[in-house]
Parts: sequence; C-alpha cells; structure tokens
Amino acid sequence: MLAAQIRVQAGRRALTQASRTSTLPRHASARISRRLASTESSSTTPPPPPPPQQSRWQRFLATTGKVTLFTLVAGTGAFWYIAHKDRTPGVQLPHDPSKKTLVILGSGWGATSLLNSLDTADYNVYVISPRNYFLFTPLLPSVATGTLSPRSILQPTRHVTRHKEREVHVIEAAATDVDPHAKTVTFEDSSEVQGLISHTTLKYDYLVYAVGAETQTFNIPGVREHACFMKELDDAERMQRRFMDCVESAAFPGQSKEEVNRLLHMVVVGGGPTGVELSGELHDFLEEDLRSWYPELAHHIRITLVEALPSVLPMFSKQLIEYTESTFKEAKIDIQTKTMVKEIKEKSVVLQMPDKSIAEVPCGMVVWAAGNTLRGVTRQLMAKLPEDQANRRGITVDETLRMKGADGVFAIGDCTATSYAPTAQVAQQEGSYLGRILKQLAKKDSAVAELEAAKALPDSDPEKASKIKSLEHQCTKLEKLRPFKYSHQGSLAYIGSDRAIADLPFFSGGNLATGGVATYLFWRSAYLSKLFSLRNRALVANDWIKVKLFGRDTSRE
Amino acid sequence: MLAAQIRVQAGRRALTQASRTSTLPRHASARISRRLASTESSSTTPPPPPPPQQSRWQRFLATTGKVTLFTLVAGTGAFWYIAHKDRTPGVQLPHDPSKKTLVILGSGWGATSLLNSLDTADYNVYVISPRNYFLFTPLLPSVATGTLSPRSILQPTRHVTRHKEREVHVIEAAATDVDPHAKTVTFEDSSEVQGLISHTTLKYDYLVYAVGAETQTFNIPGVREHACFMKELDDAERMQRRFMDCVESAAFPGQSKEEVNRLLHMVVVGGGPTGVELSGELHDFLEEDLRSWYPELAHHIRITLVEALPSVLPMFSKQLIEYTESTFKEAKIDIQTKTMVKEIKEKSVVLQMPDKSIAEVPCGMVVWAAGNTLRGVTRQLMAKLPEDQANRRGITVDETLRMKGADGVFAIGDCTATSYAPTAQVAQQEGSYLGRILKQLAKKDSAVAELEAAKALPDSDPEKASKIKSLEHQCTKLEKLRPFKYSHQGSLAYIGSDRAIADLPFFSGGNLATGGVATYLFWRSAYLSKLFSLRNRALVANDWIKVKLFGRDTSRE
Repeated sequence: MLAAQIRVQAGRRALTQASRTSTLPRHASARISRRLASTESSSTTPPPPPPPQQSRWQRFLATTGKVTLFTLVAGTGAFWYIAHKDRTPGVQLPHDPSKKTLVILGSGWGATSLLNSLDTADYNVYVISPRNYFLFTPLLPSVATGTLSPRSILQPTRHVTRHKEREVHVIEAAATDVDPHAKTVTFEDSSEVQGLISHTTLKYDYLVYAVGAETQTFNIPGVREHACFMKELDDAERMQRRFMDCVESAAFPGQSKEEVNRLLHMVVVGGGPTGVELSGELHDFLEEDLRSWYPELAHHIRITLVEALPSVLPMFSKQLIEYTESTFKEAKIDIQTKTMVKEIKEKSVVLQMPDKSIAEVPCGMVVWAAGNTLRGVTRQLMAKLPEDQANRRGITVDETLRMKGADGVFAIGDCTATSYAPTAQVAQQEGSYLGRILKQLAKKDSAVAELEAAKALPDSDPEKASKIKSLEHQCTKLEKLRPFKYSHQGSLAYIGSDRAIADLPFFSGGNLATGGVATYLFWRSAYLSKLFSLRNRALVANDWIKVKLFGRDTSRE
Repeated sequence: MLAAQIRVQAGRRALTQASRTSTLPRHASARISRRLASTESSSTTPPPPPPPQQSRWQRFLATTGKVTLFTLVAGTGAFWYIAHKDRTPGVQLPHDPSKKTLVILGSGWGATSLLNSLDTADYNVYVISPRNYFLFTPLLPSVATGTLSPRSILQPTRHVTRHKEREVHVIEAAATDVDPHAKTVTFEDSSEVQGLISHTTLKYDYLVYAVGAETQTFNIPGVREHACFMKELDDAERMQRRFMDCVESAAFPGQSKEEVNRLLHMVVVGGGPTGVELSGELHDFLEEDLRSWYPELAHHIRITLVEALPSVLPMFSKQLIEYTESTFKEAKIDIQTKTMVKEIKEKSVVLQMPDKSIAEVPCGMVVWAAGNTLRGVTRQLMAKLPEDQANRRGITVDETLRMKGADGVFAIGDCTATSYAPTAQVAQQEGSYLGRILKQLAKKDSAVAELEAAKALPDSDPEKASKIKSLEHQCTKLEKLRPFKYSHQGSLAYIGSDRAIADLPFFSGGNLATGGVATYLFWRSAYLSKLFSLRNRALVANDWIKVKLFGRDTSRE
C-alpha cells in the first residue's frame, strides 16, 4: 500500500512537471490529474500493486531482522518478567508454634544450598550468619583484580528465603556458643551498629551447623599483619586496593629501579585453585590494562606463585598441571614449588627453598591462599563432646551428616572432617541432601505424632490396632535415612590468558583433560550456571562484557 | 526460491497422498511425479517463482526487523570501536626540558576539566592528587543507596592524561606544602604502601591549585565521630554499610518497638542538593527494595531532613521548592527547616528547634551534608601571603583566576573565594577556561623567548628592528588575558519518587521551573552527558537499567 502510494505521488509530481512544460493540452492533463486523484481517494478500485521483487539477500536480511526483533522483544520481556517476579516476593506463612525449630548457622555454600532445597513449610526456620548474603567464593580472585564488581557475586540471603512458603528469620549475627546438651545457640550482633538487644539465645530442635572455616596461617610470623587473604569479600577489595597502591607507589617520582621492582613483585602463596586463578587474573590485569595506563611500569611487574607441595593444583591430572605450568611460563608467572614460607615482613617474604636454603625475597604484596582452619566457635563446640569429637581436622559426622554425640545437629561444609575435599561443590551437595533429609524427618515427626495420637485412642476403637500397625511401619520406614553420597562433577580452574583447565569425570571412564579457549568459555558458562539466581548470572555476564569493552578500573578507591 | 521449494514439496506430498487413494492410473501419477522431480533437479528451467504476497503487517515487521538488525550491528560496532580506542592509548611525547613545568594539584572537577582542555604539548605536566581518579560527586547519593556501583562514577585520571600528546606524570600523593616564593610544591605518599621515596619537592613554573575543600563540621560535637559524610567515595560506601547495619540490627530478634523505630530513623543534615537527593534516593530504596525484603520493618523507616535555613534548596525558585516539599510530604520525608544541630551522639541527634527549644531525637544514622571548609594545606598557603590572602572563606583570585600575591599560581574550584557558588559547574568552567589561558601563556612565553633572541641579533641585521617591533606587539597582545566569566547552565536535583527539579536559565528570559517524570529523564540524560567518558556514561546507564531490572542490593558488604 505504502509502495503504491509513493508511486502514485511520484507520478503526480512527474505530471505536474509535465503539465508545466509539455505540449499536452491543458484539459488532457487535468483529466489525468483527476484520474490520479480518484485512484488515491477511492479504495474500491485500486490497481493491484505490482508485488515487490526481493533478492535473496534482501529476503535473508528481512528474515534475520525479524528473528532479531523477535528475539529481542521476547527475550527482554521474558527476562523482565522473571527478574520482576524474583524481586517482588509475596506474602509468606508466619511461624507456627506447632512446628519444630530449625536453626541454620551460616550463609555460605552449604547453608544457601540447603535453603534452596528446603521446604520451609515444615519448620520454623532461623538463619544466623555474620553476613546477610551468600558469597560466590570461586569468583573472588576476579573481584580482587577488578574483572567483576563485588556486588555481582553476592546474593542477599533474603533473596532466597523471601521466596519460601513459610517465612524464615534471617539474623545478621555471629554464633558465639552452641550447647548440644541444652540444644541452644547463643549469638551476637558484632557489627558497628547495635540495638539495645544485641545478643540472645535460641532453642533449636534441629541445628544445621555450616559455619565454614577461616584462613589457616600455620602461626607463621607476619601472615596476619602483612599478607592479604582471599576468603571474604573485603579481602578481595583490600587486595585490589593494595595492588594499585603498590603500582602508584612505584610511579612516585624518583623511585629507584630496585624499589620499583620490589613494589611490583607480587607473591601468591598457595598453589590451589584460588592461588592459581589469582595469579592468572593478575597476569590478565597486567597485560590487558596496566600496559595501557602504566606503560613505564608494566614490564617491571612480576608474579611468583609459592607452593609447599611438589606441584600446583594437586587435584588435577598430570597433563593439566603441565599445561598450567607451561601457560604460566609463557605468561612469565614464576612457580616455586617445594618452597615454604617462613615469615612475611612488611617489604619481603622469607622462603625456605627446595634445597633448604633460606632466601629473603623483596616484594610489594603477599596474597595468602594457603588453606583453612576451624573457627573458634567450632572448636568450643567440639570440646563439649570430647568423646565423640576427637578429630582435630573438624567435626566428625555419620553417613547422614549428623554430628556425632549431638542430638539433632547436622554439620556440613568446611567445618567437618570427611573424606571429601573442603570444596564448594561438596558443601553444595551436602546442603541439598540435607534439604531432602529434613523433609523426611518432618514426615517422620508427624507420623510419630499421629502414632502417639492413635495410641491414645480408646481401646474400643475397632481401627486402633491396624492404625497403630500401619503408622509404626511408616515410622520405621521414614527412620531409615539414605546416606549422603558425593558425586564429583569435575574441577575447573581459570589460569589466565583466556585459558582454563577442567577435569571432568563424567566424560567416559577416565578423566577428561582439556585446556584452552574452549574450556575457558565452558568455565565461564559453568560458573554462570552455578550461580544461584538469574540476577547474579546476568550481573556476572554483564561484568565480563564490561571488562571486554572497557577494561578493568585502575582507580585506587 | 525457498517459497517455491516449499510449494513443490507440498505438491509432492499431496501427490503421494493422491497416488495412494485416487483412481488415477499408476503410470499417470508416476509421470507427474517424474515431472515434479525434474522441476526440482533441473535449475535451468524453473518456473518463475510466484512473488510472495506480503501483508502490510509483514512488511512493517520486515522493515522494523531490518532497522533493528542494522542498529544493533552498527551500534555495537561503533561502540566497540570507540571503547577500544579509548582503552588503547598510543605512544606519547616525553617531557621536554625546554618546556615550562605545570603542576596541577587535585583531580576533581576543576583539575579534570583543565586536563581535558589542556594542550600538554606546551608544558611538562605533573598532576598530584591523593586520589588517582576523578569522582563524579553529584552521583554520590546514588552510590550510597546502591543505585550505582561505586566504580561507575570513577574515572581514572590516566584515562584522560594517557590520551594527551605529551606524557603527563600522574602522582598519587597529597600536597603538604606549597611555597609561592620559591615556587615549589612538597608532596607525600600517605597511603598504606610506600616506596623508599615517599615525599619529595618539585619546582613549578605554573601551578594550578585545585585541591577542593573538606567537610565543614562547624566544630559541632560528635559530628566527626558519629555522622557519615557525603564527600568522598568511601563516605558513600560507609553510609551504605551503616544503613544496612541499622536495618539488620532492627531485625535482630527481640528488639523493642522503640528501638526498631530508633534504628530505622535516618537523619540527613543539610538541605542542599546533596541532602535532598540523598533523602529522595533513600526513600526510593525503601519503597522499591526494602519493602520486598524486609516487609516487617519497611513501615518503621523514617527519613528526616534537617536544615538551618528557612527552606531547603535555596538556589532554586520558590515554585520548585514547594514542589520538592510536597513531593517529600507524599513520600513521608520529614523536612525540619530553621532547625540547628547542636550535637550528634551515638544513638541520637540534639536539635535546636525553630522555637529555640532543644530536642534530643533518637536515630540510627546521621548523614552530614552541610557545607565545606578549607583544607589545612590551603590555610597554610594563604598564611604565607598574609597581605593578599586575608579572606577566610578561601583563596582570593583576580579575574583571570590568578592567586593574588603568588606568581604563576592559579586557583580554581571550592578552595577559592569568588562570587560564584562552590559547585561542580563553576569548577568545571574554570578548569576549561584555564586550559585556554595556559595555551595563550605558552604562546606568550614562546613569543617572549623569540623576542629575546631577536634582541640578541647583531645590530647590523636589517630586519632586527621590525622583528622586535612585531614580536613586542605580539607579546602585548598575548599578555592580555580575557577574564573568566561564569555562564550558569542551570541547576538540577533529583528528589526521589522518579521526580526531579530543574532551574534552566537558558530557557527564554526568566527561569524555567519544571518538575516531574520528564525532568527526571532530562536529569538522567543531563548527568550522563556531563560524565566525561563514554565508558562512564555506559557504566552509569547500565547501572540504572540493572536497578530497574533487579533492584538494589541489600547485602551489608
């Protein structure tokens, strides 16, 4: 229609031109003019517009355009809808005095995974943690180097609990004491702002103990004073500030070459995934950003990775370790294995080399990523059950994750001593396992209550005996808990230079060892799919695109 | 082609059906089948495909699709190209001993604006500031409430200087002393990490003094100890943490109703744009986010804005002040004018009410946004020139922004005492004015040098006299500096509830007073266009979309 109109107008213009200049008699041109006008006005007899001829390229463009348009509109709509639903939780059931009280200590991988799978209708649930958010710890090295914004890897705990059927009380406080005999937890708001009431004690029926661990310093002098940790969010932010502080101090006018080299020597202690990923990310920061903004300093920056064991990443296969080592060699990251840290000073680190000689290495920053140890509150709790809890590595649990010697207490994650590695993956699986177990326990508890009620029936009731029998059968069945079994999904590590390594046991019989850009993309999508919410997935993806476009920020906040 | 093929296939299918059920003789159907097959295979004689009939809707879809596709591809490409160019600056000229030394103290609005307009080829430039970035201060309240991510409103100073023709030394250090007689600046790296050399002195030919101001506490007891400021980035981050800390402490089990009300009472001191915007943003945070995640607490939150003058926003017209007041009334933000703060305690603020009575108001947080005062280093500098610098409000400058009594020193921004308000807009215009002045001075300096050279010519040179005359003329002309004139572009303030107010003098004779959602959109785009780089514009726009989609983060980092 539009095309036809345009043609009609064009014809008119041509005609006006013609009537001005041509030799046509005036009345003829007027007649044609009238006919054109009637074509325009009467919609009953338009000449069928000649169908537009489309080339293959035009058709391709049109189709792709339509698909793009549709994807954009539908995608944005769906995305907006889900995001909107996520941020507007509805009304919840209140706590019910007839339900048992479940207290969850912690807000890390174990606790959050449990909260995700838990049916809160069965319990009055309290979550107690000094942090009111879940932190996606494997991406901490990315925050430390400015690849990700800190808030992209946080998920407020209420974003999980507010979507549950029955309300969950989230309390920002640190547990100071657990009494397994009286079945109570004492906790305290230890933050800057405190209300009139800042510590209290709560009675539990079931307790899930998922407080995690803290950084192990092995009592090496100077670690706590001079090293940066890589465990909590502010560790990562502190490291970032310190790193840029070293760079800026090296840029101070008149700094000697030795001092510049000292300030720009970064030592990472610990050859596990955290240490390796941090070294890789630091290298990326250097290559992709510092070279642009600090061209005079960039070639002075050195990264050294120190590990006491004979190799980095002992949980990976030999092939992947070699791949990592060669990637680091290309990236000029120095790996020092069989090397122990003896002391950390303000401007250097004292190392015991493989040949047992002692070397004091000047450096600007030391990052300590060398293992976990139990928290004080965990040690206190274990000391109250000396007979059952003798393992100094952590809490001893049975095959259903019950803490030995403590009635109604489950323990998961890094505070336990199991045969599994202290990883996020283990804690996550333990958490969702517990969600199922607690569902079964709730059923059992209600069957027990029904059984009590049935036993209290008058003996005259003809159905009493059969009722009791059936309920007793049900109770016995519900009492049998399926033991926890860990299923290893694989290990991933980003090693810098757009490369990653992956050990994936679910590929055929043996381990699949892959490396390179494809794995890196896989690593990114794997990380994204492990992040709990759409919100966090979008935020992290958004940050990755931001860094690809604009680079990392070199401001020292 | 595709359409024709589909029709052929459809014909075939119909035919197969027909050959199964119809009464056609087998050979006839086989012949047709063969003919269809030959139509498919022989590409030499295809029947011209009947042109597809497109409805108006389809054509609209196709056109919109094509436009979307084109916009997407071209937009992404252009964006990527500009972003890439921005983050990969090239090689710069080194410092040239024959050039004069220009030292710029500060990295705020004045200094950054100067750096943007400055031609660094003319000078050896040093920028000295305790912060290695420019902070977009008007958006600080947005960071404090989590609408924007902190790094979105930072621009590393090197992102400006690295794109200049001659290299600029950016030094992260605080000036500790300026000697206007010896023409030297002494500065010190006062950060955590320091190199062997951490303080030094530099000789300047020209100095631009743009150190800004610090928060004025009027020596009111408790302000420094208990209030949050809103001046630097970590002030905003601290306020955010404190706000969420108050909310979490109010959520502590067993907190009394009075204590909950106390903890959730937020007092903002200062009715200027910062205080008003902060109150508005806090209200948005409450309405849009806290209601979802803390439904039991949301209705306890109260915001009070305290101002000593008879009205808030004295720089705006009466109409806009009334609009703000009515918006705040709807939003239940309490405005207390003619009210003075007498003391700030840990859990309350002591106010002197309009009727001179004293009231102690319990509150969880006090934000102090009540004015500026000179920095210590500025006072020291002024004390060295007691005759010329007697104004206690700030540095006295002449109409070309030269500091009175100090040779070669210019002063701009909040450290000066001029007839203009201490705003970002004034500092920005002063900065770009100085860029032009310094260009002219460089020309004059080179003309003076040429004049000296001409005077040294042997008297026998026939052109000497004319050369000297022309150069003297040039020097006199270049010596005349056009005085600085401030051109007010308007005032904007966001007042919450998706509303903003604007005083725009460039609309006809009088002030244009607008308010409402349209102004809010204008406010957003005005802010975006004032941000210096594409990078920051994109980051802020991105954050605004993020908040619209996902809300603000309630984690207490």
